[in-house]
Amino acid sequence: MKTLDAVLNRIDHDIDQSVERLFVLLRIASVSTDPAYKDQCRAAAEHVATDLKSIGFEASVRPTAGHPVVVGKSNSVAGPRVLFYGHYDVQPVDPLNLWKTPPFEPRIEVLPDGRKIIVARGACDDKGQAMTFIEACRAFKAVTGKLPLPITMMIEGEEECGSKNLFSFVRDNAAEFKLDLALVCDTAMWDQKTPAVTTSLRGLVYEDVKIICADRDLHSGVFGGAAQNPLRLLSEILGAMWDANGRVTIPGFYDGVKELPADIKADLKGLGLTPEKFLGPIGLKQPSGEKDRMLIEMITTRPTAEVNGIIGGYTGEGAKTVIPGEASAKVSFRLVGEQNPEKIRDAFRAFVRARLPADCKVEFGNFGLAPPIQLSFDNPALTKARAVLAEEWGHKAVAVGAGGSIPIVADFKEVLGMDSLLVGFALDDDRVHSPNEKFDLTCYHKGIRSWARILDALATS
Amino acid sequence: MKTLDAVLNRIDHDIDQSVERLFVLLRIASVSTDPAYKDQCRAAAEHVATDLKSIGFEASVRPTAGHPVVVGKSNSVAGPRVLFYGHYDVQPVDPLNLWKTPPFEPRIEVLPDGRKIIVARGACDDKGQAMTFIEACRAFKAVTGKLPLPITMMIEGEEECGSKNLFSFVRDNAAEFKLDLALVCDTAMWDQKTPAVTTSLRGLVYEDVKIICADRDLHSGVFGGAAQNPLRLLSEILGAMWDANGRVTIPGFYDGVKELPADIKADLKGLGLTPEKFLGPIGLKQPSGEKDRMLIEMITTRPTAEVNGIIGGYTGEGAKTVIPGEASAKVSFRLVGEQNPEKIRDAFRAFVRARLPADCKVEFGNFGLAPPIQLSFDNPALTKARAVLAEEWGHKAVAVGAGGSIPIVADFKEVLGMDSLLVGFALDDDRVHSPNEKFDLTCYHKGIRSWARILDALATS
Repeated sequence: MKTLDAVLNRIDHDIDQSVERLFVLLRIASVSTDPAYKDQCRAAAEHVATDLKSIGFEASVRPTAGHPVVVGKSNSVAGPRVLFYGHYDVQPVDPLNLWKTPPFEPRIEVLPDGRKIIVARGACDDKGQAMTFIEACRAFKAVTGKLPLPITMMIEGEEECGSKNLFSFVRDNAAEFKLDLALVCDTAMWDQKTPAVTTSLRGLVYEDVKIICADRDLHSGVFGGAAQNPLRLLSEILGAMWDANGRVTIPGFYDGVKELPADIKADLKGLGLTPEKFLGPIGLKQPSGEKDRMLIEMITTRPTAEVNGIIGGYTGEGAKTVIPGEASAKVSFRLVGEQNPEKIRDAFRAFVRARLPADCKVEFGNFGLAPPIQLSFDNPALTKARAVLAEEWGHKAVAVGAGGSIPIVADFKEVLGMDSLLVGFALDDDRVHSPNEKFDLTCYHKGIRSWARILDALATS
Repeated sequence: MKTLDAVLNRIDHDIDQSVERLFVLLRIASVSTDPAYKDQCRAAAEHVATDLKSIGFEASVRPTAGHPVVVGKSNSVAGPRVLFYGHYDVQPVDPLNLWKTPPFEPRIEVLPDGRKIIVARGACDDKGQAMTFIEACRAFKAVTGKLPLPITMMIEGEEECGSKNLFSFVRDNAAEFKLDLALVCDTAMWDQKTPAVTTSLRGLVYEDVKIICADRDLHSGVFGGAAQNPLRLLSEILGAMWDANGRVTIPGFYDGVKELPADIKADLKGLGLTPEKFLGPIGLKQPSGEKDRMLIEMITTRPTAEVNGIIGGYTGEGAKTVIPGEASAKVSFRLVGEQNPEKIRDAFRAFVRARLPADCKVEFGNFGLAPPIQLSFDNPALTKARAVLAEEWGHKAVAVGAGGSIPIVADFKEVLGMDSLLVGFALDDDRVHSPNEKFDLTCYHKGIRSWARILDALATS
């Protein structure tokens, strides 16, 4: 029997114990954003470190200015050195009354369609996902007495509140973590049957723009028609950000946006994500993006401009004939490819200023400048991962972009010069961050098997 | 000596008593919008009625669902029948701490430039202005024993809260008030030296527009680029309401807007109201209106579109990557000439609907549909009034439009089929509706003289 087959058998026979080990971790209420749960965050970190030691890692709970980071190292074999990143912290549970059972009392539920699900806060994000990797390691250790390649674990406790202390931790300890490849398990499958490798995470530029005209609020009966109106200016300026085809008109906006390789694009097309499927559940039909793009491109691989908020003038009941002195908007951009956040910010600000009458003023505030993450499609690790995921799931693994972000992944590239392989087993209906969070038992089980296959493939380069 | 000269002499000799009579009325705190002042509104009405009786009117205090209307009639001579409209109610006085002296203790103050002013709530709006007419009548009565033409007085008590009961009062008693001409004294001079006849009041359409896209708020990381964003749609739609020349683009918007007669336009041009003079005090320089129009046209004789409020999405501190399900705006239009409020409302709604994606919804609410008032420039009363005002003030009387409105004037035209002659003596620095309201003693004195001249001119048709 090949080693991998033995490891996969071990995983299958051990699955009940794997679930029980996950349950132990899920019972620890490690809510990172609420200081009341500080001890439980610490307890979760200690628990993970102890567990890592039991499967051959040298593990320690390392302090930060916030919750600690669990670091585990196993270098007993040669091979490509991987850094696995996950997090032991979870989102708050409120509103508690919407949970069918207590959030930190994990249980198995059988859905009407026969699916078995693990229900608890963190069942998926990220305790369940992180444990798929740890259990794969455990199976290797049990079968072969060692791990298949050099592995460093980094399991942090502040992902759900922005990883704010992890950035300096990584910077300060760059020599320890600058390895060959990062593995991240905090992303999703395409659907219940189709595995996915996330090859891009969109970046973000978030701007607050305040337009100031007159030095006071004015009466429209007196000044209407003559005085500059900041709400009119905001409408005119923001309304000019898209052309009739839904393309963003800010000069230079698409610099660094690359076309997808033909095969990847064909794969995406093959997924058949129609506007009806994606927008129907929220009551919409027509995509708002670039008219010549597929919906899946709009939400993953194309950049966006969105107005996230506008306020100004009279917004109460009834009428007030006011021309406000100032008005504000929040505007954000999701970035892809090699778009540069600073350049996009500057281009947006120039776009606004160019349309502003000389006697009006504008003030900008920035609340986000995150670069997009784009893995190269010809990364050998990506190719291997897609191949073995297809073997495990019986369906071709798609390479997709994710609309959101995982804060530290950009630093793995920027600070450590290391690519990341993002594989995860979440499903769209997992209610991540919401009451009754769940993780499909199949996703957990086959997720463990998937990591075993990926580790095996990476080790045999 | 001609009758008019004798009347003017009488006015000059009686000015101190005229001021004292105004003071008596100013001491009555007839704040109409606050129910706590109901008795004082009644007292003001009784006082005016008694005063009218003393100069030959049959006067009565007529009930409405709110504060009463004072009606006085004098029909002892033949001639064109005029209806004089004014109001005895005043605006609230808060913030009281900003008044230098108590608002209902009128006093004379001498300004650094030598101007004597009457300071009190209502000194100008409208007790002082209404008294200019009453004092002119008093002088005629004193000199000739009678009034120069048939006069009906209508002094209401709810103008400062929208004249809401006067509309039905006028409708229910149309036969009494359907006369030959309405005289209104609630408008302004052009400046301290230049008298003005107000020949137009802009109308108003005030709309609330709510755009509804998804049936919930969305995360821009997931839906950004694909889901319709109501803030983007509002920006695009409202931003399209003006072309590059500042002209409103709503189809049919300018239907019924007439060019001014050449002589009137020349007069307006001669006033030399520069953008610097008008916009400088509020910190602006460049007019926002139609590029081929004078500033004075923009604020008085041209229609406008203004956004009075927008709200939607996240408007707090910092960032939230939300795509809101809905967003709202308040949009208003000032109308002129023969623009039809209902047609403008419908054209605006059609403009919005035409730009709305098929899967989005819009809800409209209306908070104002007032037609513009446009006096015909060849009305003989207007010509006479301008001529005698020029005699009194030594400067040509300009015919100007007012940006705001006097609610009942539209009904004088619509319900009673009667033109109005709007002459008033307010100045821009009168602080109407604000603390330390004042009326120049010269405006009061020469205002009385002006009405004497106008009544004389109208009587000798």
